[in-house]
Amino acid sequence: MSSKKRILIQLDTDRLPSVFDRVVAVDAGCEHVLAYGGVDPGSVRDLVYGAIFTRGGDDLRHTALFVGGSDVGRGEEVLDAVKRSFLGPLRVSVLLDSNGANTTAAAAVLVAARHQPLAGARAIVLGSTGPVGRRVARLLARAGASVAVGSRALERAREVAEKTRAAIPSADVRPVATSSASELEAALDGVQVVVAAGGPGACLLPLEARRKARALRVAVDLNAVPPAGIEGVKAQDAGADREGHAVYGAIGVGGLKMKIHKAAIARLFESAAQVLDAEEVFELGKAL
Amino acid sequence: MSSKKRILIQLDTDRLPSVFDRVVAVDAGCEHVLAYGGVDPGSVRDLVYGAIFTRGGDDLRHTALFVGGSDVGRGEEVLDAVKRSFLGPLRVSVLLDSNGANTTAAAAVLVAARHQPLAGARAIVLGSTGPVGRRVARLLARAGASVAVGSRALERAREVAEKTRAAIPSADVRPVATSSASELEAALDGVQVVVAAGGPGACLLPLEARRKARALRVAVDLNAVPPAGIEGVKAQDAGADREGHAVYGAIGVGGLKMKIHKAAIARLFESAAQVLDAEEVFELGKAL
Amino acid sequence: MSSKKRILIQLDTDRLPSVFDRVVAVDAGCEHVLAYGGVDPGSVRDLVYGAIFTRGGDDLRHTALFVGGSDVGRGEEVLDAVKRSFLGPLRVSVLLDSNGANTTAAAAVLVAARHQPLAGARAIVLGSTGPVGRRVARLLARAGASVAVGSRALERAREVAEKTRAAIPSADVRPVATSSASELEAALDGVQVVVAAGGPGACLLPLEARRKARALRVAVDLNAVPPAGIEGVKAQDAGADREGHAVYGAIGVGGLKMKIHKAAIARLFESAAQVLDAEEVFELGKAL
Repeated sequence: MSSKKRILIQLDTDRLPSVFDRVVAVDAGCEHVLAYGGVDPGSVRDLVYGAIFTRGGDDLRHTALFVGGSDVGRGEEVLDAVKRSFLGPLRVSVLLDSNGANTTAAAAVLVAARHQPLAGARAIVLGSTGPVGRRVARLLARAGASVAVGSRALERAREVAEKTRAAIPSADVRPVATSSASELEAALDGVQVVVAAGGPGACLLPLEARRKARALRVAVDLNAVPPAGIEGVKAQDAGADREGHAVYGAIGVGGLKMKIHKAAIARLFESAAQVLDAEEVFELGKAL
Repeated sequence: MSSKKRILIQLDTDRLPSVFDRVVAVDAGCEHVLAYGGVDPGSVRDLVYGAIFTRGGDDLRHTALFVGGSDVGRGEEVLDAVKRSFLGPLRVSVLLDSNGANTTAAAAVLVAARHQPLAGARAIVLGSTGPVGRRVARLLARAGASVAVGSRALERAREVAEKTRAAIPSADVRPVATSSASELEAALDGVQVVVAAGGPGACLLPLEARRKARALRVAVDLNAVPPAGIEGVKAQDAGADREGHAVYGAIGVGGLKMKIHKAAIARLFESAAQVLDAEEVFELGKAL
Repeated sequence: MSSKKRILIQLDTDRLPSVFDRVVAVDAGCEHVLAYGGVDPGSVRDLVYGAIFTRGGDDLRHTALFVGGSDVGRGEEVLDAVKRSFLGPLRVSVLLDSNGANTTAAAAVLVAARHQPLAGARAIVLGSTGPVGRRVARLLARAGASVAVGSRALERAREVAEKTRAAIPSADVRPVATSSASELEAALDGVQVVVAAGGPGACLLPLEARRKARALRVAVDLNAVPPAGIEGVKAQDAGADREGHAVYGAIGVGGLKMKIHKAAIARLFESAAQVLDAEEVFELGKAL
């Protein structure tokens, strides 16, 4: 048995590294969290070298990396730089969870699956063009759902659909415009699962449109700041029946999200060659 | 019993967070100190959210905040931003000790009280316009002393007196000018307690003036850098008799200050809703 | 027995403090590593005061300082500022290892000594003008070798020789130019030990020149990035026989370097008044 301490190196793209991620890391059993703020792709190599050149052999798995910060696109660039810095077997495990995007998307899809088997289901992602929405779409498609990716601008939804198909060739995904009430109504027709992943300040699914969606079984709203992204859903909702739908709000999803986050951190230290992005985090959440 | 680690989040307004405060936090039993430098009021909310959204219920008390840095005014702004970021019961305990002002002021008043009961006593604070001086004046007034707040500029002393009365309506406090030897002599007449809280480089109380203060019992000089703020007091003095007065220098007060600092950190983790500013730190020091 | 935690304060001149140094510190038994990036001489005093004013008496030895970062010259300035900030017996132990220069130089000289007694030996340092080369020259000279310090520019080699003699009056050291094949051949004549300490990108000792050096016993190449600084030496070499010489590459030296680094960190906590620079680190490595 090695006596090496568990070290998590937190690479955060914000100036001040996230307190949230540091506390979760401690609670997940990390004995030392080496927190870095203001990390950009150019500063990654030296930091990764410090991780891979200090401990040898099996001890390497006691060091791991976490990529975070509020900007998911920037986090993805840092993750790419991390992967490019590994030298063959000289590598450590890494989790990407900028803005909580991966753990949130995984939790959203998992709570939906409690009420509706996803294989063969019809689902729609509202506000699908942001980093969380894109991940939710990918996870739903991979689980075998037929997925509509919605945006007020059809062009942007098309781009999300294309990217999803590029990642998952078998994906059944189509873009839908959701700017008018009639477009939204048409998009929701026959849909069992809706996930709203838009930013704060906009209601993406009014109550009236939700009532007309007769096939709807479960509605997940990931926006925590009023007004609700799905009208009638409260942030604390965690499976409550509202208008005949099982509904979840951001805080209601938060409990599972936190469990997944901690499990993902713990998983990092099981072996040294893992890259935990959306799909891996989802699989890990499924096994909880 | 919870197995949660004690986490202190150090919000420091200086670029490099204080080593002093970090070491004291470790010695006071904090298992993880999350040190942030360059903290301004605008960056506080996200940091506080990370503190209050990661641990639930009774576990919240194992996370606490410390506001520090060399600029006390800036620290007070950060403390205000911290308090505004709490969401009802979602809050953690917080200690303000920028520049050691609260623990120093508490220690200064407590060592004075060893030699002179403060209720009904007459006291003067020299260099009262700085952050430590203001706190000493408040603590003396609250303890029931009749307090003269001194400054070379009467106008500035008036402002301190007004602020003290605004904080403590029952305060018996009056401004005094101390720029000339005769003013100083008049101000010290009948006074039992003097605390010098001015910055380095100035002697606020010459030996001659001190000898003329016939009622004087105890003199506390908080300036550690020569020349002494109270002539004839050495930094190491801790109750020594000099010219018939019990005197304390900055280092002599330091032992108690350190005890209070550690006790205040430990206190943070007893419950989750405390705000420890000058008065709370003083009460805590009194109980040691 | 004191229950004080071992605290290492890492003063790093780079913006992001070295992950390498933090992980080694943890593995060497430090319970808290207080990592500071962007440290310059002007910011040192307050940091050192925080180290020396927080723990008293024998407990002071549980706090120590580490000066690191990629710029060795800057690290030396920080070390000087650290020493100037100590107040008599109020001091803690400090290790300088910017860019790994001290531990690398010590390891290089120690592996050479495995194959050739250094007292009375003839040695040459190629690329001697950098911080590692200067240290290697000093350590070889102090061990009693006759040392040639090489540079493509004789003028720069002269400066290194003068500095070495200034540090060690008894040093037998002479500058040599190594820009042409014939100069190099002459410089290597009769030499038993060669250490190449140049930067990446340049081969300082071609195979042909090495073959002609008939007295050569051991060759140490500290450059890890291809091309090799000494042709025919691989980074992993650790005493391999190549062309009749025992050879070491940067990674081959790395194992001993790491042991020395950890031992130096552990040594810091044995007493409070140590300054570990090249010579002290070398002595410590010799005792391993």
